[in-house]
Amino acid sequence: MRTVEWYEGKVRMIDQRKLPWELVTVEYENYRDVAAAITDMVVRGAPAIGAAAAFGMALAARQFDATNRQELLRYLQEAAAVMKEARPTAVNLAWAVDRVMGTASSESWQRHEDMRRVMLREAQRIADEDVEINRRMAAHGAELIQDGDTILHHCNTGALAAVDWGTALGVVRMAHEQGKRIHVLVDETRPRLQGARLTAWELKQAGIPFDLIADNAAGHFMRTGQVNIVLVGSDRTAANGDVVNKIGTYKLAVVAQENGIPFYPVVPTSTVDLNTPAGDDIPIEERDAAEVRSPFGLAIVPDDYPVRNPAFDVTPHRYVTGIVTENGIVYPPFGPHLRQAVKMSQQQPRPAEGEPEEEPFLTSQPSLLDDLEY
Amino acid sequence: MRTVEWYEGKVRMIDQRKLPWELVTVEYENYRDVAAAITDMVVRGAPAIGAAAAFGMALAARQFDATNRQELLRYLQEAAAVMKEARPTAVNLAWAVDRVMGTASSESWQRHEDMRRVMLREAQRIADEDVEINRRMAAHGAELIQDGDTILHHCNTGALAAVDWGTALGVVRMAHEQGKRIHVLVDETRPRLQGARLTAWELKQAGIPFDLIADNAAGHFMRTGQVNIVLVGSDRTAANGDVVNKIGTYKLAVVAQENGIPFYPVVPTSTVDLNTPAGDDIPIEERDAAEVRSPFGLAIVPDDYPVRNPAFDVTPHRYVTGIVTENGIVYPPFGPHLRQAVKMSQQQPRPAEGEPEEEPFLTSQPSLLDDLEY
Repeated sequence: MRTVEWYEGKVRMIDQRKLPWELVTVEYENYRDVAAAITDMVVRGAPAIGAAAAFGMALAARQFDATNRQELLRYLQEAAAVMKEARPTAVNLAWAVDRVMGTASSESWQRHEDMRRVMLREAQRIADEDVEINRRMAAHGAELIQDGDTILHHCNTGALAAVDWGTALGVVRMAHEQGKRIHVLVDETRPRLQGARLTAWELKQAGIPFDLIADNAAGHFMRTGQVNIVLVGSDRTAANGDVVNKIGTYKLAVVAQENGIPFYPVVPTSTVDLNTPAGDDIPIEERDAAEVRSPFGLAIVPDDYPVRNPAFDVTPHRYVTGIVTENGIVYPPFGPHLRQAVKMSQQQPRPAEGEPEEEPFLTSQPSLLDDLEY
Repeated sequence: MRTVEWYEGKVRMIDQRKLPWELVTVEYENYRDVAAAITDMVVRGAPAIGAAAAFGMALAARQFDATNRQELLRYLQEAAAVMKEARPTAVNLAWAVDRVMGTASSESWQRHEDMRRVMLREAQRIADEDVEINRRMAAHGAELIQDGDTILHHCNTGALAAVDWGTALGVVRMAHEQGKRIHVLVDETRPRLQGARLTAWELKQAGIPFDLIADNAAGHFMRTGQVNIVLVGSDRTAANGDVVNKIGTYKLAVVAQENGIPFYPVVPTSTVDLNTPAGDDIPIEERDAAEVRSPFGLAIVPDDYPVRNPAFDVTPHRYVTGIVTENGIVYPPFGPHLRQAVKMSQQQPRPAEGEPEEEPFLTSQPSLLDDLEY
């Protein structure tokens, strides 16, 4: 089961707000409901949001009873604006919407029935590509895991954050499927507790042994020789290998290095930002103080207590052992090696517009295109 | 107002379970209620528990209508056993009970009215000594604080953990009272959130500017130059200067050193354990998994999720800049210097038994003995 998918003419997704208590899926027939689901965090995680928005655009094309191409295009432009507003800071969302719209508005598609069909194909491609990239990262990363290893993991980087597999947690799952006996120490990841609520749930489902810990406890386990490797995701990686990720990652990296424990971010090349020279060039978003004061409705302190709530931190590349990408594991010097890894993905053959019959650009996994029920 | 005190023939204390929502004091007239309050964590923090237990013993002597000395002593021995059971692992509690009992059972006191009086005096002395030691630590530590400094602080080390002042937070308060403009970053301190619930409240009361942060955010603020000094307490310090303190302290110390930020534990010599050579000789207690799974009634994960919950960690002395004690600030090499600091306290003149009219052994602060209403 995928986190987000096209199913019998609807967009179906796991309602992540209900986890770990209930596994509930919801189905949407109206693109506005998909946008609302993104806003309300029914779905979260950059790749999952991208796929949801792409399928949402396919839904928009389906639900509007257009009589001609121009009419449908106008309607779709309005839908695209609504969708992008759902979470304005999510880079993947705008990228996915633009990609689906770019395909639709190509002059090759004069019949609006064709436009609808090609939009769904492009959305499905976005989802399939994500799965395939994650599976390749997982395969590369799993080579780092030895039988008997304990892995320290931060935040949620699993299938729930993507369409399937995930990044760092994809590596964990692959190592487990390879039959390696592994154990995961799961940082609960305050303030939003993604480690406790989502990662622990995913590991439980997969039958992978784990222990949940308070973020404060990670150092104790590293110092006392109970951790073999630290795996994290990354929201954005700078050209020099500095890693921007969920708050708390930096402390883990420093303490890992101090104890001779390898520290590997697992990073699709799409999140490597070659235009940003270093991590400190990336502004760090501060989120709502309520996340710290009143997590999930539990008031810890009064509402007028002052709070600082940075959502991310920067881990300078000198603490990074290596970076796992879909094109292999990148080691220092990160500058030239990351550039090379990004270039490899950009050089993958892409289908030209107007050639929807081609296979998606990453082809080692069978596409779901043929089974699509539009 | 003191955290624990003798007031109009009763033991009065702040009910810390109600903080930060309400400042409620409770008064007890029966030693069994004091023992129950210690068990139920109305009062917590080693020195505060010690003072509460000592006053509880004075209450026991007061409430029993004895006709002779032997009868009263038997009753008190029973009360001492009940009191020590209130929190069996609290070293200070047994120490305080034994100290009060030792005074009472001295042969010098043949009249049971005298026994009662001398027990209350000894309990008051325990409380006064704690305040005085903390005040002296605060004065030494405040020399480290510059005008304009931002202090990073972990857990609760304030007046609430002691009778008054506290350890690391006593230093903060002293610097503030000296007119230095300071700012405190308050780690919330999962799993039990003592930083959020107690330290933030104490700073709010004192009018000292602060921001509450998730534990994960501390590294970000250190790396970006927003922290000048890290102050923590210590539950037990080994002879070589290794510091056992609330879980999460070790990560702070490593990241502080990495960023050239001084790291000072504030430690009364009574918690320096010269008989323990190194931190790793001290067993680390693991506490109830429910603290991680369901903090304060908020269920984060189901009850069957596996958890590791170490309560303390060890910070090796190589990460410690200096240790603030009541006898001055101790710098490396910690072995000989800590021994010296401990010896200084042991050489303080103590009142011989049977000389209750003497001043308490640390005399720079006026004793409250004369105002006692028994």
